[in-house]
Order: sequence, then structure tokens, then C-alpha cells
Amino acid sequence: MSKSRSLDIAGLVFGGDYNPEQWPEEVWLDDVRLMNAAGVNLVSLGVFSWSKLEPAPERFDFGWLDRVLDLLYAHGIKADLATATASPPPWLVRAHPEMLPVDASGVRLEFGSRQTYCPSSPVWRENTVRLCTKMAKRYGEHPGLAMWHVSNEYGDELSRCWCPASANAFRQWLRRRYLTIDALNAAWGATVWSQIYTDFGQIEPPRATTGPGNPAQRLDFLRFSSDELLGLFSAEVEVLRELTPDVPVTTNFMGISPGTNYWQFAGREDIVSDDAYPDPADADSGYGAGFGYSFMRSAKHQPWLLLESAPSAVNWRDVNVPKTSARRRLDAMAAIAHGCDGVMYFQWRQARQGPERFHSAMVGHRGEASRTFQDSLRLGAELAALAPLKGTTVRARVAMVVDWDSWWASSAPECLPSQRLSWAEQARAWHKAATMLGVTVDMVPAEGPFDGYVALLIPGLFLVTKAQADAITAYAESGGRVLVGCFSGVVDETNSVHNGGAPGPLRQLLGVEVDEFWPLADGETGVFKWGADAFAVSLWQEALEGDARGLSHYEGGPLDGRPAMTENGRARYLSCVLDDAGLVAVLREFLADAGLPVRQTASPIERITRTDGQTDYTFWLNHAEAPQLVETPAGAVDMLTGQCLGPTTTIAAGDVLIAAKHSEEGAGQ
Amino acid sequence: MSKSRSLDIAGLVFGGDYNPEQWPEEVWLDDVRLMNAAGVNLVSLGVFSWSKLEPAPERFDFGWLDRVLDLLYAHGIKADLATATASPPPWLVRAHPEMLPVDASGVRLEFGSRQTYCPSSPVWRENTVRLCTKMAKRYGEHPGLAMWHVSNEYGDELSRCWCPASANAFRQWLRRRYLTIDALNAAWGATVWSQIYTDFGQIEPPRATTGPGNPAQRLDFLRFSSDELLGLFSAEVEVLRELTPDVPVTTNFMGISPGTNYWQFAGREDIVSDDAYPDPADADSGYGAGFGYSFMRSAKHQPWLLLESAPSAVNWRDVNVPKTSARRRLDAMAAIAHGCDGVMYFQWRQARQGPERFHSAMVGHRGEASRTFQDSLRLGAELAALAPLKGTTVRARVAMVVDWDSWWASSAPECLPSQRLSWAEQARAWHKAATMLGVTVDMVPAEGPFDGYVALLIPGLFLVTKAQADAITAYAESGGRVLVGCFSGVVDETNSVHNGGAPGPLRQLLGVEVDEFWPLADGETGVFKWGADAFAVSLWQEALEGDARGLSHYEGGPLDGRPAMTENGRARYLSCVLDDAGLVAVLREFLADAGLPVRQTASPIERITRTDGQTDYTFWLNHAEAPQLVETPAGAVDMLTGQCLGPTTTIAAGDVLIAAKHSEEGAGQ
Amino acid sequence: MSKSRSLDIAGLVFGGDYNPEQWPEEVWLDDVRLMNAAGVNLVSLGVFSWSKLEPAPERFDFGWLDRVLDLLYAHGIKADLATATASPPPWLVRAHPEMLPVDASGVRLEFGSRQTYCPSSPVWRENTVRLCTKMAKRYGEHPGLAMWHVSNEYGDELSRCWCPASANAFRQWLRRRYLTIDALNAAWGATVWSQIYTDFGQIEPPRATTGPGNPAQRLDFLRFSSDELLGLFSAEVEVLRELTPDVPVTTNFMGISPGTNYWQFAGREDIVSDDAYPDPADADSGYGAGFGYSFMRSAKHQPWLLLESAPSAVNWRDVNVPKTSARRRLDAMAAIAHGCDGVMYFQWRQARQGPERFHSAMVGHRGEASRTFQDSLRLGAELAALAPLKGTTVRARVAMVVDWDSWWASSAPECLPSQRLSWAEQARAWHKAATMLGVTVDMVPAEGPFDGYVALLIPGLFLVTKAQADAITAYAESGGRVLVGCFSGVVDETNSVHNGGAPGPLRQLLGVEVDEFWPLADGETGVFKWGADAFAVSLWQEALEGDARGLSHYEGGPLDGRPAMTENGRARYLSCVLDDAGLVAVLREFLADAGLPVRQTASPIERITRTDGQTDYTFWLNHAEAPQLVETPAGAVDMLTGQCLGPTTTIAAGDVLIAAKHSEEGAGQ
Repeated sequence: MSKSRSLDIAGLVFGGDYNPEQWPEEVWLDDVRLMNAAGVNLVSLGVFSWSKLEPAPERFDFGWLDRVLDLLYAHGIKADLATATASPPPWLVRAHPEMLPVDASGVRLEFGSRQTYCPSSPVWRENTVRLCTKMAKRYGEHPGLAMWHVSNEYGDELSRCWCPASANAFRQWLRRRYLTIDALNAAWGATVWSQIYTDFGQIEPPRATTGPGNPAQRLDFLRFSSDELLGLFSAEVEVLRELTPDVPVTTNFMGISPGTNYWQFAGREDIVSDDAYPDPADADSGYGAGFGYSFMRSAKHQPWLLLESAPSAVNWRDVNVPKTSARRRLDAMAAIAHGCDGVMYFQWRQARQGPERFHSAMVGHRGEASRTFQDSLRLGAELAALAPLKGTTVRARVAMVVDWDSWWASSAPECLPSQRLSWAEQARAWHKAATMLGVTVDMVPAEGPFDGYVALLIPGLFLVTKAQADAITAYAESGGRVLVGCFSGVVDETNSVHNGGAPGPLRQLLGVEVDEFWPLADGETGVFKWGADAFAVSLWQEALEGDARGLSHYEGGPLDGRPAMTENGRARYLSCVLDDAGLVAVLREFLADAGLPVRQTASPIERITRTDGQTDYTFWLNHAEAPQLVETPAGAVDMLTGQCLGPTTTIAAGDVLIAAKHSEEGAGQ
Repeated sequence: MSKSRSLDIAGLVFGGDYNPEQWPEEVWLDDVRLMNAAGVNLVSLGVFSWSKLEPAPERFDFGWLDRVLDLLYAHGIKADLATATASPPPWLVRAHPEMLPVDASGVRLEFGSRQTYCPSSPVWRENTVRLCTKMAKRYGEHPGLAMWHVSNEYGDELSRCWCPASANAFRQWLRRRYLTIDALNAAWGATVWSQIYTDFGQIEPPRATTGPGNPAQRLDFLRFSSDELLGLFSAEVEVLRELTPDVPVTTNFMGISPGTNYWQFAGREDIVSDDAYPDPADADSGYGAGFGYSFMRSAKHQPWLLLESAPSAVNWRDVNVPKTSARRRLDAMAAIAHGCDGVMYFQWRQARQGPERFHSAMVGHRGEASRTFQDSLRLGAELAALAPLKGTTVRARVAMVVDWDSWWASSAPECLPSQRLSWAEQARAWHKAATMLGVTVDMVPAEGPFDGYVALLIPGLFLVTKAQADAITAYAESGGRVLVGCFSGVVDETNSVHNGGAPGPLRQLLGVEVDEFWPLADGETGVFKWGADAFAVSLWQEALEGDARGLSHYEGGPLDGRPAMTENGRARYLSCVLDDAGLVAVLREFLADAGLPVRQTASPIERITRTDGQTDYTFWLNHAEAPQLVETPAGAVDMLTGQCLGPTTTIAAGDVLIAAKHSEEGAGQ
Repeated sequence: MSKSRSLDIAGLVFGGDYNPEQWPEEVWLDDVRLMNAAGVNLVSLGVFSWSKLEPAPERFDFGWLDRVLDLLYAHGIKADLATATASPPPWLVRAHPEMLPVDASGVRLEFGSRQTYCPSSPVWRENTVRLCTKMAKRYGEHPGLAMWHVSNEYGDELSRCWCPASANAFRQWLRRRYLTIDALNAAWGATVWSQIYTDFGQIEPPRATTGPGNPAQRLDFLRFSSDELLGLFSAEVEVLRELTPDVPVTTNFMGISPGTNYWQFAGREDIVSDDAYPDPADADSGYGAGFGYSFMRSAKHQPWLLLESAPSAVNWRDVNVPKTSARRRLDAMAAIAHGCDGVMYFQWRQARQGPERFHSAMVGHRGEASRTFQDSLRLGAELAALAPLKGTTVRARVAMVVDWDSWWASSAPECLPSQRLSWAEQARAWHKAATMLGVTVDMVPAEGPFDGYVALLIPGLFLVTKAQADAITAYAESGGRVLVGCFSGVVDETNSVHNGGAPGPLRQLLGVEVDEFWPLADGETGVFKWGADAFAVSLWQEALEGDARGLSHYEGGPLDGRPAMTENGRARYLSCVLDDAGLVAVLREFLADAGLPVRQTASPIERITRTDGQTDYTFWLNHAEAPQLVETPAGAVDMLTGQCLGPTTTIAAGDVLIAAKHSEEGAGQ
């Protein structure tokens, strides 16, 4: 990974998306006044401004943006300036209707929302590169420019296209991948259902068809689609590297989301940034945000930015419950705890028009008087007090494997043993269990490297390559602990079941063979017998064979008495879906066995430490609705109050405690 | 409102849709015999007869219709004669395939159902006007012609089209509305998501797109679509006015339904008519019919017609539960109670073919022996006894605001604080509460006039214009009482949030500002504390600020202690969705405060009075499954039995009592 | 029915679908070794091999198939050889894109799954006939060829097409059926909703339209679509009859499924074969399989084959629960019990690629060690012990009417009194009740012949023609007992309601008239009063009139006291949907009254007898989860253990007992 450019902002970032073109210029003065009051130091600018900046082909109107940048800079506020290529202007779409995307049924999607473009459209790529170049040349030297914001949430409204141009690009992608049509036929299992191709020209994307499609074709199409978006991103990055080599580049992720392979995107940007919108109506959403934050923290192992979040309600759910002030603060602090160097919101001033009228903002419709602005004032002040944390990082000793190929391959609409099993839900549940046990978890790609971690969590790795299996096995052989979840090691990179079945190349490591997947019907449960305890199993079980030692057994049902969790050397295999309590029990024992300091009792307190090697900043985030008593390092300083802590501290419901003290060995946990 | 032509029928109307072309002519003789037996005096004729009347272009076959009209007239039965333009004949569609409508995904809908035409098709309009002219010329002088029935249920199967012709008409409509593209961009918030147009030609209807669409564009498209249907109606009306200036014109509404703006249609017809199909399987459906009837009564403030209703089961629900004889009678009497001058059914004789084979009819498949015909005999006799009511009207002292723009703007698929809040459900619940309190409610447009009413109910007015707000405010200033429900005053006519947020231009009237909408998650409830009582809140709450006096507060939850209902002068604001009991309590207090005679206890007896100023005809309709004791004006005459009433009368479950007595002041309530 | 060619296999068939082209040739040797070990004697071969056999137009590669057939034959395994026309090769689709099917919305379905062809495509038919001819010529004389397997599961992934070629074929089909457009208009009720056609060229298939479509048009389209698939089948059969007159022909059915009219297919094949996939997660699925098996047994009144079934889990449900070993054995034995001469599985070796990777197989991913293979070994041995049953048949004295026209006409999306009533569910429930009463039921077409049966069960016959009604009436007049279920006799062959309504031409037989269908709202129940008993009614009731004697009455509700079941001579009419207990009570009395030996208490033991007139082979299949004690003919021989039975035998949960003894009169029951 090449050295990343860094963000030139003092202290932590505080700010949000700023869309001044939606407001008369007299409002701008009010904006900067309120920004200054709240301590805003960075705003994202111009994300959807193409049609304003270039109202007609090659007719540019930069004046308003010049004035905005100057005004912000004059008030000490820097810009995360977009290349403005997130959404096309009308004239471009009308001049090139073939750039509109087409869905799997052949419906050409119309202009009228956003991100309405075919990712493989040559016209689209050419025009985005042209505008990016224009922006880089005009604003590359502006002293207020802090960072480039390329496009927006790649893969959000649109991640795949089935149009003829995409089909053509898909065929080219396949040619590059397979070289010969025989190789493709072999990889795709083309003998099944009479699909042997004799020419790449015969291949189309997996459009609507009569029944189940070819899983290898679908997986390749998902890979291709991610690559096409990556290509768009890379093309802009190349321009920016060339013209503004010192300005860091980012594009905003959306948690761990299935649209595109973020490992690849992270490798081409300087600063990882995330858009996180935990639903306050979901009791687990606090833990869920941490799941995404752990990825952001791990993507480049450097501080990242929360580029978008909601001050209160969002607008796109069926029911958009607002956040209480406490919840908003906790969400922000959780990001900081996870190594984030700043908190930004969508958006600065609540829109009056467009689909996001009802999305909350730092300044609500009522302006300065709105609760969200009053909270913004308070939060800005608190973040200012946390300036010393800037640049510090989190050190985790446990890692969890995240792999997009595997996720895509194991997701519906494929014909699977059960449509109910979800990698993301399992991974989130494992992450939550670790969090409740006081253990911080990094994310790693399936091929590693894993060094530096004492334990590896693999909540599910449906697709595993020989190389990945070798890396995991080598890790275990060199002393690492591995816990593998069910439905792992099933297929290879072509989505073909490994010879001999699951767990494929993990068979030797785990010492088991899966004779049959044994999903549970809806509403059915099984029993996971674990010493004197018994936990509920749902959705999934497996009939295991092999020499691994049984640590737990199924009780009752068709698998009565057969192993449910096994151990083989340093590797364990959990063949079913456990409830939260079961996961906590299984992870507690596994992590303790790995030598980690694990809580004896699961707690809703998320504890994470940032450090620069000199000072440790430990966060205690209370995700519960009741106060919690925690042990605190006596004498450490409460960063928000400046007071010294005693040996225990009570943290109110939804509250956070941040303590600074001199670093010690192992403080990362 | 111009003077309306009236219907030349003695007594109340009784009849139904008659489709003689579905039967051999020997059946016609049986039809008129049975019609005479039942007292039928009007039938709707020819609604779907185009392909029978004009089997090929310009080749007409009027003979059968001549014979039918003559036969009916000879038997004393008049015709509500259709212009036969409800559905195209096959030859027209095949000659002009571009007149078939297209859905939002671009699917061209095929002939094979009904109303299969693009409302903006020039070919369609030209041909409907041509046929209408032909019909008017041929039958305008027929002595059996009582009324013109134009088209059928505009907006039922088809209310919008996304084809190129519609797109073109939409662009023309937008040009007329906005004059300049800059004005459109400003109204549509085109700076959001890069949608600044430079030419009207770039605009398309809101077709399927990648994500949420532009709410202003969608609202304009709904307005445009309603206008296109109104244009079709108007074109026929113009022909009829010209050729048969003395014949009244109607088109059948479908309750308060979202397809088209009925205020505008009512303004162009002589007689308001309604198709009402309350579902007997729905316990509230009796009250629900009254909701629609109140609109029909108010649309022109003159007697209206129930042009279609079901004698028993319908055919288009998932489960079509028949009506008991009592329920059928109650539904009919409820319409009469609400100022209707006649009850008609779909249809006269139950079809053997087509999609409506299983829709009940006045004469069932078993003919004369069928229960529905035997009931028809009895009902016909009862209606004959009510002849004195003809022309009398209902006088309400309370009005409820109904506004299509507001309804459209607040409906999904828009991004809203909650998709669960429904204007129609709220309005229906308010109307039911008023009914249970013994209060009759008129419907009024949001811009008024409101004079003559002592109180105004606004169950929700998401979109409110400055002019509407001024009218409402002026009404309160001149002494009227106003109760406004939640999510009101949010956007202006361009669907843009009012500056400063809700309730926008109602802010001064109500004395509140909505800091945040606070919808409740599915299954969550809140508490509305009202003196010693507490009622359940669901779906919606709001965080209010402002100087209005709190009449009620939220108890518990994130808004604990904050005002739930406020009072500011004569205006109250209810910021949440209440259960039925809560609504009754709130409305009772509000209406009593306005000086209306309100029941102390809510009752399932719907009481309404029709009057001609000389005699009051009061209806008591028992919507409950148990008998109810009601106070009756001693000495009044029971219209159905001819007997004198005592001071109290017991009304059996599902029964109706109609009493005639000399008019008094204020009998309208 | 012409004499059928028979299958030249000694003993019962055991085997499965074999797809050697998915495996390297070295695996083939292992395959035949394991097949021999398990006693496999027949495999289905080449079903989806077109693209392998003819990788390019007229370029054939038969070598691999030659080698496979020779290898199998050398190991004593015969081939059910496919004509390989189940799915097109890519080159054919790309050369003729118009052969891809189109759905009702106009979406052209893409290649990528299977059966992706328009059934009316001339190109498709020509090419399938060509390939079939090629296969017949090359392999017709191969000594290993046991049977031809034409296409695969007609109507599974694709049973209807709405493309222009299909539209054209539909018009031709209509011309042949109606001869004149006037006849079509009369049949279709074209006066309804202005649909009078003047030319066949104006007609299209029932594509997506604005509202409900014409039910007569839809029914004709379903008939046409079935006929088109039948035409494809017949074209291949013709070739095979010509070139290989001694080789039996089959095509695999899918239970009683709605896609195509199996009575017609059965008439053109030599051996009826079935694909049966009861869901082990469905408690009733064991009985449900018997429902389909009864049809297969009756389709040609000769032994049939279970051509496909699942050794354990399937892959296409949302949750695919595996079968226990006992369940797999019970499913196999149930088929044998129902007159099946062999059990085959999909498939021999579990695939590694394609959509069926997770469908279980006789040899699982783990190969010889897999549970499914170990079970296959045991099952093969048991089937070998049942060789004497080959060619024996089941003799039933009760028949149930199955009619596709009626099923199609009564199915959604039609406008019906209730969308909840399902003919298939009712028929399955009646069959289960008869099974629990120990009564074996044949299936018969609605037009008979019915001779040889003492009672006729008609769980529903929505569409009944005059000829069918006459046949049923004649049967009753000649002494047969008839039980007719609700919603029968409603429409004629044009889907028009019979004059006078239901039960139409069955009125005289049943002595009732249906005044109104009276469906029950979701969740509502009624009471069926039956002597001292009362059973729950759901979904459906009817208001009956007429002279038939009431055997049961509704209690409570709108039909309180009115007849629920009637008797008129030898015919009974059940006007509602009963729960299982009610059906058992009603059928017990009806069948006992018909003189059949009926169990006094319903039992989960399915008892069926196969016989050759000399020896009776009686099966007792325990569908319960508890052991059951049954009376057994003392001295009879247990076919699986060779031991003599006592007067009673206990059958374990899920177990089967098969006893052989000398035939007696009436042993068929």
C-alpha cells in the first residue's frame, strides 16, 4: 500500500455536506456564521453540482463555487470538494440516451433520481474524466481545498447495468479473465443445462430468464460490475494524482455493503471515509455501526473519516425515527472510538426540495433554533476537546475475515440449501458478541495477511480459494487460533463446489467433512449442547463427519448426538447458527483460550482504545438503556470533563466516557 | 357554479346498470317486467357498448339500442345513457396501437380489459368526441333519455400513462404552468441531484428510475394526469352542452379516490354521482361509505345519485363477502340519508361472461327467484315511500377539508418521515368520530369558502398554499373554530417545504412550530395525556415549539411532557395519530366548544337530517350489531311504517328509522 | 388407448439421472462400480446434453455418449436416453433470438437457465425434431437403450409465451376452434367491456393490461399453451414411433401440476413417469405424494415409473430440509405401493456446478462415504427383494375427477368469489381423508368412463360441460355414488356461467341451486353441523336452494340453519370447505354408504394393495411419527424380511410393511 496523502486539518474534523446552490446567497452568510459557532472545519461541497457547474455542454459556471470556496476559506472552513460526477446533468443524458442504465428485465431507467448512468458507458467515463480534470485544474491550488471527494456512494442507487454496452464490457472482461471459451465453459460448468458456448460473443449478462441462472455467470457479473465502478473511480483518481499530487482523495463507503468490493477501492484512495446511518429504531444498531467502523479502521490501518451520518432522522426508510440528542452523540463518539478522525453529517442545512427534504440536518428547517443545531453546537465543542486523539489508532488482536466474492456467491437469488442464512447477519452477530465481551476486532481480507493477530474469526467463508485456505492454514500452523462458522469452504473461485464437498481446502485444518447441510425450516429450532448449557440453534445445522474433536453436540432432532462444534488443533468449526447468548459463550471460550482478556460477563459497554503509543485513549460507550458501572484506570483523565477518574465509574444510559492515560503494553484490548 | 340541469324523474331513483347487449332480446321482455315489478325507473345504458354500436370504423349498429330505449320508455323506465366511450373497440386499438397506455416501466398495456387507452392520445380524444356527437345527435331527443353518463369511473383501471404522447402532453402542460425553464427548475428544486434542465424538451414523466424521484415532478405529473382525464371529460361535456343543452350530464365518481381531482370534475357536471362499494367484511365500512357520501353531498350542494353499488358481493376483492339483506338496505338508506336522490346498482342482471360474472346483481343468476331480486322488490317499495325526500338537502355546520394536491403530495412513493401515515385513513377516522358524536360533516376545498360553518376539521393538509392558509386564518379570525391534524402546512404548491418548516403559513394561526416530525416505529405506541384520560398514539408524533397553549401532553418516550395538542385562539393543532377513543374525546370537546350539540357518549347510530325547510326528515342508521335505543321527536311520523313515534325508539341491529316532522331552527345537526 | 410398448428391465427399476458430461471420464468408472454395488439398472441420460452433443450447427460429438452407453451396457445398466431437446444450445438461441420466450409484460427472457424457448417457435420445433431424428437413428439399435426420454418436465420453467410467434399460433388455434369470429365473440362474451372483434387478426394473447382480463380468453390461452407443448412432444414421438417402433417413450410429469393437461400427454406416451419432490418439512407431504401417485397409476392403468425424486434435500425451495433415511425409504415405498415399477433419483452424482449443486444425489459430494450413497445401497437391496411386484397393479373402487380445464378456469388471477379457494388443495385434502380411511382412489377425467367404480369423488368441478354432466349423471343413474364439492358446475367450456347459475347441468343430479356463493373472510370460520358433531368451515359456504335433502346445516352466521351438505338420490353435494376431521367424517359416511370397507377411525397408515390376480401385495405405510399397530393377514409373508406375519403387526414410525398373500376377491381395497 502506497503512502497516503493526509488531511491538513487541525484537530478532529467536524462538518457536513454543504449544498449552497440550493439556497440564495444571503443564506450563505448565515451558514458560515453558524458553522463558525459550531466549530465546523470541513464541508463536502459540490457532490451533485454538475448541472449547476456545467449547465450546457462545455458551458461552465464556476462563479458561485468560487465565491463559496472563498467565503468558507475566509471563515476558516476547508472543503472536501467533489469532482461533481455523482450524477449526470440532463443535457448529457438527452444527448446520449444510451448511457441510461438498463435493469435485468431490459427496462431502460429514466433520468429523475441520481446515479442514473451505465457504469460501462464510454460517454459517461469520458465526461466524468473531463469534468474531473476541469475541477482539478480550477481548484487544485485553492488554499481551502482539503480533499477530493470522488463521485458518491458507488453502488448505492445503481451498482449494475444490463444494457448492451455493459454486455459488451462484460464479454471483454470475461475474455481477459478466461482467455479461451473452453476455460470459461469449464469454470461455468457449461455442461449443465446445455450451456456450452463456442464464442464469447454468445454471452450476455444474467438477464431475466426462465428459471435459476448459472451461479458462476452471476458471480462473474457481480465481480465485473464492481470492477466497472472501480474503473470509474480509478480513472478520476488518475487525473487527480497527476494534476494535484498532494491533495488526498476519498470516496465515501456505506459500511460493509454488498455493491462493490471495498478492499479494492480502499487501495486506491488516500483516506477511507464512511457513510453510516444506524437506525435508532433498531435496538442492535449501535453495535451494527461498530461492525462497519471496524472495517473502515482496518481498510488502510490509519485514521478514517465519518463523512456522512444523520443528526437525527433519515428520509429513506419506511419509518424514519429521529435520534435523541444522546443517541446522536453516542453514534459520533463510537466512530471516534473506532479510530475515526472526524464526524460529518448529511447535511449542513436541511433541504426544502428534492427527495431529501425530510432528512435531518445540522441546521434544521427551523434554522438556528432547531434542536439539531443546538446539539451541533454542543457536539462541536466536545469534539474540539478530543483534538489530541487525532492520528491515534486502534490496535486489535483479533481479526474477522471479510470477503466480497464469498458474500456475493452465498447470497440469493442463488439456489442454496437455505435462502435464510446471511453472511452479513452472521458476521454482525459475531462482531456484536466480541464487542460485548470487550474484544476489539479488525477486519481482514480472506487471503490475509493475518500476522499480528492472535485469533481469526471467520463467520462464514462460502467461497474459499486454495490460496486463501493455505493462508488460513499457515496462520493456524504458526500459532494462530481460528474459528470458522458454518457453510464455509463450499465453493472455489468459479463458484464450483470443491471436490469432496465442504469445507473443501479447509478440510485438513478443521478435521471435518460436511456430509450434508441441514437447514432448519422457518420457525424450527435445534439445541446446541455446550457442557451444562444449551443454546438455541436456528436456520442452519450440518451433519459432520471427520476426526475433529466434538466440543458441542446437537441434542434432539435428526442430528441428535452429532457434533455441532468441533476442534482440530487450533481450529474450531461451528456448524450452526447460534442465538446471541450461544455466540457469546462460544466466543468467550475461544478468545479466552487464545489468551485474550475477555469479560466474564457480556456487557453492553463497548470498550475501545485509541493510542499513539504514548497515551491511551479508552472509550466506554454505553449501548444500554440503563446505567452501567465500569472499572476505570484510577487517575486517568476524563477527556470531556478534565476530571480524574476513580477505580470505577458509572456511565449513564447512552453516555460515553473517554479516559486518557499513559500507554501500557496490551492496551489495545 | 353555473345552474345545473336536473333529472326529470318522479320520486327517488331506483335502478341499475343495464347491459342488454349481453342477452338475447327475449330476455329484455323479462327484464322490463321485473323492472316494473321492482319499481325501477332509471337504468344506466351503453357504458361499454362502443364495439357493439360501432363494430367497424364508421359502421354503426344503433338498431338494438333504439329497440331497448323504446322498450324501456314504453315501460316507464328512463335511461341514464352513456356516450359509450368508457372503453375502445378492438378495431380502434389495432388501427392506432400507439393509443394503448404505457406504464412507468415502459410496458405497453394490451387490449383485453377496459379503459385501455392513453388519456393524452389525440386519436382517443378525437374518436370519443366523434362517438359522443353521434350519440347526442341520435338520442338527444329521445323521450326516454334522462341523463348523459360520460365515460365510466375516470381513473379506475387507468389514471396515468407514461407513453411518448403523454410525455409530450406533460411537457406542454409544464410549459403552460411555468412559462420558463428557469421557473420550472426553481419550482422543482433542480439544483438537488443535478437536475437543472435547460429545455422543456429534456423532461420526461417520472418513469422507473434508479432511486427516489423528484417530488415536485411527481406531483406535477399527478396534476397533469388528472387534468388529462378532465380534458377528456370536458371535451364530451362541450359536445353535449351544445347538442342537448337541457339534458343533465354526469360521470360516476368512486368515493373520495386518489385518481383524479373530483372538485374539478364536479364543477363541470350537472349531477354528482357516486359508485360506492363498502366491504361488508370490514366492520367500519358503513362509516366509510358515509365519508364518501359526505363528499358527494358537498360537491355541488345539491342532491346526488348513488349510480352504482352492490346488491350483495362484488367480484374484485380477494374475498368477496356477500351483503345480508339488512346490510344492503342500510347501505341504500345511508346514501339517501346523505342527500342522495336515488339508489342504483351494478348491475341489473348478473352477467354470465366477462370479469364481472361473480359480481352480484339486482337479478341474480337464478333470475326472479334469487334473493337479490326478492330484496330488490322490497327495497323498491320502501324507496317509493320516500318520494317526499326528493330534492331535500342536508345542512351541516361542520366542514372537513379535502384537497387532492395535498393528498397526492403526502402519499408514497415519496420519501417521507413515515410511509405509514395516510391522509385518507386519518380523514376517515375523523369523519367516523364526528358521526359517532352525532355531527354531520360537509366536505370543502382547502381554499374555501368556509362561511356558514361553525367549525373546520382539517385532518391533515400536508400541502398548503399561502392563499389557502390565508383563507383558513381569515375564517378563524372571523369566529370559526379550526382543528388541524398532524403533518400539515409542510409544503407549498411546488412540494417544497415552507421556509422555516411546518406548519408554514399556518404558523401564526396555530402558534406552533414543528421542530421535528417524530414518527413511531411499527408496533410502537405513545401516550396522549388528556386531563385524567390517556389515549394511545400510533404512527406519528411531533416535537412542537411555540407559544400555543398545551391542551394535552405526551407522556413517556422521547417527547415526554411536551405538548401533543395545542390551542391558539380559535385554532387547535393535534400533532399525532390517535386511536378512535382519543379522536372521539378530542372532537367532542372541540365541537362542543364550538357550540354544537354533541352527544355525550359516542354512538354507532348515524343521525342525519334532510330538509326542504318545511319538513325535516331525520335518519337514524344503526351500524352496530346490537339494537340501540334512541330519543325520537315524539309525534314525528315514521316514513316507512307511517306510524307516529314516541319519545324513544329502539332500532334493531342494522336497521334504519326515518322520521318526518315540521322543520325547526338548527335541525341540520 | 393403443397398446403401449413396455420396459425391458428385469425386476423393479432402480437408478437416477446420470450426467457423465459433467465429470472427467475417470469418474465414469467409479460411477459404474458404485451403480453395480447399489443395484442400479437404469439411468436417464443426456437430458441437457444438446450443447455437448451438437456444439455447433450440424457439428456433432457423439463419441462421449457412445462410450458412456457402451460402458453402462457392459455393466448391465440400461439407458433411459433423452432426445436431448430439453434446453437449447447457445448457438441456436443466438442464431434465432426470436425463439427466446417473452413474458406477459413483453420481456424477452434471456438464455442462461433452461427450457428457454418459445413453444410455438417454428425454429425450435424444427431443430428439436432434427435432433430427435439424429438421436433415434444413432442409438435406436443400441442394446443398452431401454426407453426414450423426450424433453424434460414440459411446462416447468416455461409453460407459456406471449411473443409474436405465440400470438400468431394462438390466432390460428382460435380459428381452428371457433371457425368464425362471431362464434369467438359469443364464446368470449365480447359484448362485455367493448371487446367485439371483427377479425381474428385483432386478437392477442392475454398480455399485461389495465385491469381484469377476459376469462374466456385466458382459459383458451391456457388450453392453447398446453396444446403447443403437446405439439412439441407429439412431433418427437412421431419421429420415434417411425424410427424405433419398439422402444417405449416417456416424458416426465411433475405430479398433478397446472402447466399442461397430462391426460393428453399420457395418451401419447408408452410409460407414464413422474418427478415427485414431497417436502419433508411439510407434515402432509407424504399424503401429498400419494395424491400425485394416484394420478400416475390411473393415467394409463398400468405400472409407471418414478423417474425423479430426491434422495435427501432439493435445491429450489427457500429452505431445503434434507430427508432422513427413513423418509427417503418411505417415499420410495409409497411410489411402489401405488403401482410404480421403479424408483429413480435426481441425480446419480451430486453436481459441483450449476444451479443444482445443492440438490442431493445418490452419491453425495463426499462420494461413496456419503449418507445418501450408503442409503442407496440399502434401498437397492430392498427393491431387489420386491422384484415379484413388477407388473402388478392397483385396483381401486373409488375414483376422483381431475380436469385441467376446470382447474385453469377456477384459478387466480381470475375475478372469483374468493381467491382463497383452491381446487388442488381441496382435492389433496379429499385424497388424504380417503387415504386415512383406508380407501384407495383412482383418478379419472371428468368425462369418464367411470365404470368399475362404486363411488365418484368430485372435490370441485368449476367448469363442467353438458357431456361431462351427462356422463356423471348417467353414472349415478346406473347405481354409482357421487359426492360433489363446492363451486362446481359453475361455468361451461367457454368459461361462461351456466344459465340459471351453479351447479348448471348438475342441477338435476344434485337437486340444488346455488343462490349465492358465500365465501368467508380471512380468519372467519363457520360451523358445519353434522348430527351430534360440528366441524369447522373455512374459506367457502354457499346459500343453497332446491329440493335435495339436507344432511347437514350451517349453524350460526348469515346462513344459519340452511343446508350445508345435501343428498339427492345417490348424489351428495358438499357446499363448503371442511377441516380434515370434517372431511373424514363426511367421506367415511359416504363411502360406507357406498358399501366400501371403510376404517371406523382415521389412521395415518396408508394401505394399498398391488396384485396380479394371483398374489396380493399389500403395503402399510406409516406416515405418523409414532408406531402403529395394524391388523395383518396371518400367515402372509413379509416381503422385506421373508418372515410370516401374525394377525397384528406393529409398524414403526415412518416404516413400511409389505405382505404377500394369495389373492382374494375385493383385495383391491
